[in-house]
Amino acid sequence: MYAILKLGQEECLRFNELKNMISGISQRMLTVTLRSLEEDGLVSRTVYPDIPPRVEYRLTDLGQSLLVQLLQLADWATGNLSEIQEARRRYSQK
Amino acid sequence: MYAILKLGQEECLRFNELKNMISGISQRMLTVTLRSLEEDGLVSRTVYPDIPPRVEYRLTDLGQSLLVQLLQLADWATGNLSEIQEARRRYSQK
Repeated sequence: MYAILKLGQEECLRFNELKNMISGISQRMLTVTLRSLEEDGLVSRTVYPDIPPRVEYRLTDLGQSLLVQLLQLADWATGNLSEIQEARRRYSQK
Repeated sequence: MYAILKLGQEECLRFNELKNMISGISQRMLTVTLRSLEEDGLVSRTVYPDIPPRVEYRLTDLGQSLLVQLLQLADWATGNLSEIQEARRRYSQK
């Protein structure tokens, strides 16, 4: 989910750029995540024949349409954060 | 997420009704899930003083508003399932 949100902020990103944007993610975890997103057709992976090879990831049209949904969900979470925090506070005092 | 979608289908549900609606979920996992949803203020838990005690779970207003978001996400997934499956097929043939 974070990878999609981050790729939504830029037209395309290289692996290490993406890794630096998602705090705490391991190289292995990001590799697995990107492969899964590519497999589902949400992210495209382009290899440029530079030396050293340059690999760029970007959202596909399908990925863009999922991004819209995730941004709405993120908006919901942001908009209701104080209510959730208040609920947690009440629950902890039960 | 499944618990919220299932609770969205009925006004309220007892623990075992919910457990039967979510295939494969363990008693322990559902207990933890419901406690977390209650803690976040998404689900309310009502104990009726029957013998044996009756416990009902329902979505709060906050939970209902999250349900709307999740239904939209589920709609997206359903609407794009064939495209995702096609992408997976292509990927497996690479």
